[in-house]
Parts: sequence; C-alpha cells; structure tokens
Amino acid sequence: MTVTKAQVRSGAYYDSVVLMQLQRSLAALPGIVDAGVVMGTAANKDILAQTDLLTPEAQEAKADDLIIVVRAETLTEGEAALGQVDELLARRRGQVQQDYLPKSLESAAQLLPEAQWVLVSVPGRYAAGVAREALRLGRHVFLYSDNVSLEDEVALKQEAVEKGLLVMGPDCGTAIVNGVGLGFANQVRRGPIGLVAASGTGLQQVSARIHQLGSGITHALGTGGRDLSEAVGAATARQGLDLLSRDPETEVLVLVSKPPSTSVAEALLRAARAVDKPVVVDFIGYETAVRRIDNLTFATTFDEAAELAVRSAKASGYAPVQEYPLDRFAPGQRYLRGLFSGGTLAYEALLLLQEYLPSVYSNAPLKKELRLANSLVSQEHTIVDLGEDEFTVGRLHPMMDNDLRIRRLQQEAQDPQVAVILLDVVLGYGAHPDPASELAPAIARARAGAQEAGRYLEVVAVVVGTDEDPQDLGAQMQKLEEAGARVDTSNEASARYVGRLLRALQAGDSTDAARANPVPLAVLQQPLAAINAGLASFTESLKAQGAQVIQVDWRPPAGGNERLMAILERMKKK
Amino acid sequence: MTVTKAQVRSGAYYDSVVLMQLQRSLAALPGIVDAGVVMGTAANKDILAQTDLLTPEAQEAKADDLIIVVRAETLTEGEAALGQVDELLARRRGQVQQDYLPKSLESAAQLLPEAQWVLVSVPGRYAAGVAREALRLGRHVFLYSDNVSLEDEVALKQEAVEKGLLVMGPDCGTAIVNGVGLGFANQVRRGPIGLVAASGTGLQQVSARIHQLGSGITHALGTGGRDLSEAVGAATARQGLDLLSRDPETEVLVLVSKPPSTSVAEALLRAARAVDKPVVVDFIGYETAVRRIDNLTFATTFDEAAELAVRSAKASGYAPVQEYPLDRFAPGQRYLRGLFSGGTLAYEALLLLQEYLPSVYSNAPLKKELRLANSLVSQEHTIVDLGEDEFTVGRLHPMMDNDLRIRRLQQEAQDPQVAVILLDVVLGYGAHPDPASELAPAIARARAGAQEAGRYLEVVAVVVGTDEDPQDLGAQMQKLEEAGARVDTSNEASARYVGRLLRALQAGDSTDAARANPVPLAVLQQPLAAINAGLASFTESLKAQGAQVIQVDWRPPAGGNERLMAILERMKKK
Repeated sequence: MTVTKAQVRSGAYYDSVVLMQLQRSLAALPGIVDAGVVMGTAANKDILAQTDLLTPEAQEAKADDLIIVVRAETLTEGEAALGQVDELLARRRGQVQQDYLPKSLESAAQLLPEAQWVLVSVPGRYAAGVAREALRLGRHVFLYSDNVSLEDEVALKQEAVEKGLLVMGPDCGTAIVNGVGLGFANQVRRGPIGLVAASGTGLQQVSARIHQLGSGITHALGTGGRDLSEAVGAATARQGLDLLSRDPETEVLVLVSKPPSTSVAEALLRAARAVDKPVVVDFIGYETAVRRIDNLTFATTFDEAAELAVRSAKASGYAPVQEYPLDRFAPGQRYLRGLFSGGTLAYEALLLLQEYLPSVYSNAPLKKELRLANSLVSQEHTIVDLGEDEFTVGRLHPMMDNDLRIRRLQQEAQDPQVAVILLDVVLGYGAHPDPASELAPAIARARAGAQEAGRYLEVVAVVVGTDEDPQDLGAQMQKLEEAGARVDTSNEASARYVGRLLRALQAGDSTDAARANPVPLAVLQQPLAAINAGLASFTESLKAQGAQVIQVDWRPPAGGNERLMAILERMKKK
Repeated sequence: MTVTKAQVRSGAYYDSVVLMQLQRSLAALPGIVDAGVVMGTAANKDILAQTDLLTPEAQEAKADDLIIVVRAETLTEGEAALGQVDELLARRRGQVQQDYLPKSLESAAQLLPEAQWVLVSVPGRYAAGVAREALRLGRHVFLYSDNVSLEDEVALKQEAVEKGLLVMGPDCGTAIVNGVGLGFANQVRRGPIGLVAASGTGLQQVSARIHQLGSGITHALGTGGRDLSEAVGAATARQGLDLLSRDPETEVLVLVSKPPSTSVAEALLRAARAVDKPVVVDFIGYETAVRRIDNLTFATTFDEAAELAVRSAKASGYAPVQEYPLDRFAPGQRYLRGLFSGGTLAYEALLLLQEYLPSVYSNAPLKKELRLANSLVSQEHTIVDLGEDEFTVGRLHPMMDNDLRIRRLQQEAQDPQVAVILLDVVLGYGAHPDPASELAPAIARARAGAQEAGRYLEVVAVVVGTDEDPQDLGAQMQKLEEAGARVDTSNEASARYVGRLLRALQAGDSTDAARANPVPLAVLQQPLAAINAGLASFTESLKAQGAQVIQVDWRPPAGGNERLMAILERMKKK
C-alpha cells in the first residue's frame, strides 16, 4: 500500500535540469517509491497518469504550473519529502562556475563583446523574446528551445536575414562552428566537408559517420526542423549554403533534411546547383529519378550521404564550371535536335535533359504534352527516336540503314535555330558494318553547310560498343571525330554535356537574386565565443571545448507574468 | 528540271534489306537524282513527300503496297531505271550461303534439331504467326519484328510461359545467350553479370559499359519494350530473372527498363528481392526514396547501373540470406517498438522500414493515417520520437534525461506481442555524460523480464558518436552489448536489420507463387543454335559468332493474302 501526495506551484519558473534533479532527489529520499516533477501540460499529466502519479490536485494544474508528486510508502514519508522541496531546489542553484552572472543579454554582451553567438534554451514561450533581443544586439542565435511558434520563427529569420545574422532553430539541436559544438554535437575531426542540416540527429549521424570514415568537417550548420517549410522558405539553409560556398576551407557540402515542400526544395536545389562545389543532398524520403545533376548527388540515407561526401572530397580535380566558347554560335542558335536509333538511349537522354532544359519534344516523349505534332518536323528542342514502329514498316532499323537519319540530319542542320545535333551510333553484331563511313561524311557536310551560312553546328555522337565489336570501336570513333563530332561512349555523359552547353547558351538570368546582406565569413573563422541563456550544461560544454562563454542568469521577464511581459516588450520596441 | 516517276506493286513482299538495296541500286543508276522504295504506309508517304518523291500514284498506294519512285534528270532515264526493277530485285536474291533453304520452320527444325531458338524478323503483321509456329515446335523465340499487336504479345507469352519457353519481344532488338549475340549485340566479355532488359539499346549501353569497366556478362536477355506493361505483366522479365537466379555462373543481376506500371514494378521488384543474388535495378526515370533494399540497388542511369553491377560483382562475401534463430521468440511476438531520442533518426528508420513492414505507427509518422492515437500507447509496429515538442515542455530532451525512455522501455517490454525494441543513443557534447550507465541496466532488466515470462526480447541500439566524444564511444557500446543489446553505429544498418528480422518473423507466405513451368537452364548452357526467319543478315551474324544457324526461305503465307492466311491459321489449330 502506497500513498501519493502532490504539490502545485503556480507560475514558478525553473530550469529543466533543476526539475530533473529535483525529481531524482525526491525519488532517492527514504520511503519514496516514485516521484514526478513536471510542468502541468496535458501531455505531462498523461505521463503522470500512466505511472499512477496523477492526483486530483495535479489534474487541476495549468500548463504554466509546476507539479511535484511523490508516491511514498507512508503518508509521513511522503509529506516529509514534499517538505524538503525548497531546500532541494536551493541546493541545485548556481551550478555554473562563474564569478558573476549577468542578468541580461545586454550586460553579458558588455562583459564578453567578442561573443558572436547567443545560445537560447529557455522555455519555448520565452525563447523568441530572448532571440529577438540577441538579434538587436547584433548576435547570431543558436535557438535550441522548441515549442516556439512558426510565426515567431518567420519573424526572427526575416530580421536575421536583413541584418546578415544567422538564426539556427528553433528546435535546433546541434551545430559545429569552427570546431566548437553547440547544443548536442559530436567531437568530429576537422576536414573538408561542410554540412547544412534541418535535422539535428541527421547532422550528428552524418558527421559522426564522416569521422568514422577517416574524413572530417569544416562546419556543421543546423537550421531547425521547420526551416525548409513553405512558410520559412529555407531562410537559414540558404544562408548556410551561401556561407559554406564562400568558405575556402569547405570543399564539399552536404545538405540534410526531411523532404522539403516542393517549391522550397526546387529553390534550394537551384541555389545548391549554383554553388561552385560538389553538394551531396539527403532529403530523407525525397524521390528522385536522377541521382546526379551537375554538382549535386542525391543520397537516400545518412550513411550514404557521408560516404558520398567523403568520396567527393577525395576525388580531386572536380571541375565545376566548364567554359564553352559560346561565341562560336550565331545569334538565334539555341535548339537541340537529337536523332536516335536507340529508343532507350533517346529515353535516357530525355530524362537527363529534363534537368537542364525547360522541355524537349519527341515522338516518344516523357510527357504527353511534349509529343511532336509531326514526327518528321522538329519543334524547339527535339529528340526523335527513328527506331519507333512508325519508321520501320518495310524499312530497316536505323541501326542498319542510315538513310533516313542522314536525310534528317541535313534537314536539321539547315535550321538556323539549331545549335546542337546529338546522335547515337550503335555498334555490334546485327548493326551496320561500318556506320561511321556513312555518318561521318554526313556530319562533315552538315557542319560545313552551317559554317557557310555563318553558323556553328555542334555535333555530339554517342558510340555504343566494345573494342571487340566487329566494326572496330576505335576506328569508328576516329572517323566521327575527324568529321568534327564530339564523341563519347557514354550516353549519360553526352546528354549531360549537351544539357550544360545549351543551358549556358540560354543563360543570362542564370545567377540567383543577389544576396542582400551576406552573413560575414567571420562567424566561421573567428574563435567561437558565446552568451548562453538557458541550460547551464551548454555553458559547461562550451568551456570543455575551450570556447569563451558567459552564462546569463536568465529569469522570465516580469516573473513569468504574460501580460506584463507584453507591455515590457512593447516599451522596448520604442 | 527533274522528273519524278513512280511504280506501285500490290501485295508484294520483299525483305527490308532487299528494299534498301533496291533503293540504293536505283539511286546509283545514270541520271537518277534520288530514289525511294518503301511500303505505302502513311508515315512512309510523309517521308517521300518531304523529299518531293510522292507522286499521285504513290499517294494512292495502300499500306501493303510497295512504292518505287525515282527522280531523274530526264523522263527517259527515269523510265529506264524503273524498267530495271525486276532485274535488280532478282540480283539481290539468295544472299545467304546455304545449300538448301527450307521453306518452313518445320523442315528447318528437322534439318537442325538442336536449334533451341527461332529468330523472327519478318514484317510485323506476319511475325506473330511465325512466333506461334515456333512455340508449337517447342522453340524459344527471339522476336525482333515490331508492329506486332499487344494482344498477340499477350497470347504468345501466355503460351510460352505455359510451355516453359521464352518469347523475347516483339520489338526485341538484342540478346546475348551463352556468348552469342542475337539481333543487335555487342561483343562483350564473358563474366559474372547477367542482364534482363526491356530495352534494347539500354541493354547494349550497359553491357558495353560493363565490358569497358573490365568485367563481363553471363547472359543478357531482352524482353521487348512492352513486357513490363500492365497487360503483359513482365512475363518474360520474370522468366529471365528466374533463369538467371538459377544460373550458377551469374553472380549479379541487372534489370533495365523504362519505368514499368506500378503494379508490375512492385511484383517484379518482389521477385527480384526473392533472388539470392544482388540485383541492380535501372527503371530509367523511376523515382525511389531509398536506394538500397536488401539485395536491390537502384541506379538512375545506364553508366551507374554498369558501375554498380561491376562493383557488386567484385565485392565478394555478399551474404544474401541471413539466418535468424527465430525460434527464440514466443508465438505472438511480432511487433517493433522504436524509442528514439533523435527525430530524424526516427524518420530515417520509418522510411527504411517502409520497405520491410506493412505499416509503422508513430507520433511523427510518414503518413497521416499512421499517427498514433495516443503518443504514450504503442500500436502494432510503432516508432516514438520522444524528443517531439509534446514531451519536452519543462522536461529535458531525452538525449539528456533518460527517465521517460526507461519508463517506456519497461512498458513495451511487458507487451507479449513485442519482439524487438530499437533505440538510439546519441553521444557528444551537450548529451548525457554517460547514457549507457542508465540505459544498459534498463535494457538488461527489460530482457530479463521478458525471459521470465517465457519470451525473447531483441534490443537493438544505434549509438551515434565518435571515438573523440567525451562519453567514450567504445565503453558506451560495450555496456550496451553486455546488457544484451545488438549495437551498431549506423542507424541505417540497424533499421535494416530490424526490418529483415521482423519480416522473417512474419514470413510464411514469403515465397513467390511457385513457378509452374520453369524455363530449363539448358537454354543458357547448351551451345546456341537457331533457325532464322527474316533478315538474312542475322543468319550471317550468328555464323560469324560461330553459332549453328539455318535460314528459312520465308514467304508470307498465301502470298500475303490476309483472308487466306486466316483460313490456313484456323486449319493448323485443329
């Protein structure tokens, strides 16, 4: 037989650490079977109920109230335990080893002016106010607190972006800046990989994996889990991406998040693609049809993201921006005409080109609305599969008979809007015994015709075959090259080349809107110093890592009185 | 000034090679500027029109009619050219070096009884009939012809499956069986990789790439591009998969196709997953959220598919089916309970487990309908994120305070339906200084309790951290292991382990419906021998590869008279 006794304290504020320690101290007292010390939210009351700790008084408590419950073997022991609460609370105070605890961020900032960061881990309903204060003081914010409203997040980040400051969070569990972990962070080797993550433990798993694989990180920037939502629009992730793209130490970037909203994902991927470094993207659960797009590689798990980043960092010689002599082309030349004999090669090219060109028409298109009105007449960017059934009634397949393709090649080459012709040459048994002997002269003729007309025609040929094929792969490639074609054995590489070339040709509005107020690189490069408002353990952890830190003796404004808080807030704004 | 003259021949049948050669011979005659020799389909007439070869007579031709057109410098030369058509056609006959040309498949089969294959490349409207005849003779069919109806394909494949025979195609461009290429095929080194492809040039690009990467193939089985449609249901691909899974030479499989219909994709992937070998899947354009599932790896391009296959083939020690001592569990034990402190770790686990378990409930689920009615009470398979906002009002994050998690662990361990508990332990700055000191005893207690109740409780712990973390990664892992947990530093590996274990526990209906009539392995193992009906060049190509082959002097039945053909067909069926 046990007895349960509760005490409810209205509007009292205590640090969560203090509450946890009070609960443990109570549970350790003689005759105490179990203890609960929680704020009176519905969820917390459910948890108390599950362990038979929810007394009628506790049931009545409001979300702001502190509930203290004990289950004891006797009433006397229970009452004795509750009688010691004040004493136990007093014992837990002032754990931080600090001579003087400033009461406000402002005075903390005067004591430690080099502090670029304010760490905020006060209860959610107060956290936005503290973060706002930090921004007013020109400090970056690491906002660990959760239970912060979306509206507050949007407002804080908007202000931060305008000021060239970072707000990581709310609910940002982790970051590593210049070797110092904020919040929860593993001790990870320094190295060439920079992370931006809207996911705390995702960032930890990836960075720990990178360490285990023998590599290391420059910086790991958390954004808070909601940063990639429609409302927030990846405000912090974009700043992080921009910072790491400018950081000379960062060679490879990793972007981690749960799947963002479509429009945010598109904008963020566009920004990532504009980065002059490889970027590994793990939008966990995000579906992609193509794994690599220019400098982007999509991972589907944390382990894979870490492996790809480490591999990218090792692979030296990543050539980000290729220079095409675009001035060879005449004004108006801008379209692709792909003349394929292989249906699936055409399909793969269409798929890859989706990532480079707005739309490519075809007689076998990816989407119905891109079907050519007439297979014999190209429209804008077009890829024709000349092996489709419509072309092969009583006619040999284009792998055997080049006639139709050569006629089409001349036709396309005469179109002044055409810049690039892409074609496949499939070798092997069954195919034409020497396709280059017919195609190469046709290519040379097409290019010469364009040149006479004052244009430049780029012809790209994919040769599929092996060195043991009857046609002699090397000789076939050489003939095509001598005719002026750019030749490759990879359909993928050729399609990507064409995509990049045509994108470059159509550029102009290529660069993203210029950033208004870039976050200064100093935030990554100066020794980290911080002001901590909230969990004292974060101050201890920063000290353990050798960073300068000052703990604020934070108390809820107006003693937690919400109405008074609102008045004070309004007064400050003036 | 030129003059265009045409001749139309009704219901005449000629091999496409003959037509191509006639066109070329005509174009080479004195005074001839251009020539066209095509069947009178609408598409072909459009092509003639484009090159000003469509005369009024040609315009009137029907799809079965042969159109012969020349554009000549003078009327005399044009008429002279058309006058030579019969002579030119006669000259092209009987190109195959063969003493005797049998007139039917039946007599060809008597001449070359070891021929397992019939290659069919006759015009589309006759092709199904020839293929049907081949099946009647118990031969596998390589059906190169296109313009074959979907209904014919379905019927042919149904018959083939019943007889344990293969029908590759229609519109099957390529295959390599036991070192011999059928149709279009590159000369690819023999090696450990087997291919099944509903894509001709896809198969060629991947197999050529494998060769270029220094590896090789066992067999490459084409299926025809429509095989993975809803109607055909991947009949041939499934046979191919099954054959290669039984083929002792094939170590790694590659499956290539355009994206199949959802239901076909699911069934085929289920079949591929039941294969005891690694399978690389490139459903070009197919969107996946997870890149690896058991033995399956998804590629997004041909190059990548080849690379992955070569890498898989090299990686020895692929352990396909792990044996779990499932009899440790009591009857009724079947559910997972995941107790996470890391939100994104929970999310990744949910994502991966999707591929193993029908549905996993959560307070932060992948789909709304899987939301727990009450976060404090698990349902069937459940993963709880204990770091969600609902749990952290006035309470430390579960990375710092293990209390809530330990209580939940005991609760779950008492549930007789629970088989596996999965939890994460995140180390690093900010986190609990020694989580294993609290979690390990709780795990040991939970396991002991289950054992007393006659059950077995599998506890899997993911430890996220590095060897430089303040908690000592090795010591943390050891404590958890000593408590009986299975410990890993990878969330992915742990989630997959749990998924496989629970799947095995729930098996029973695990194996696919037993195949009724498996295709005998002999088709891959015996020296290839074939009967060829259609393009003579295919016979030449088989000979060049050292295979035995016999060419049939195929003519349309009833001289191409469709009504008579139908009557003959009906007579044969009796």
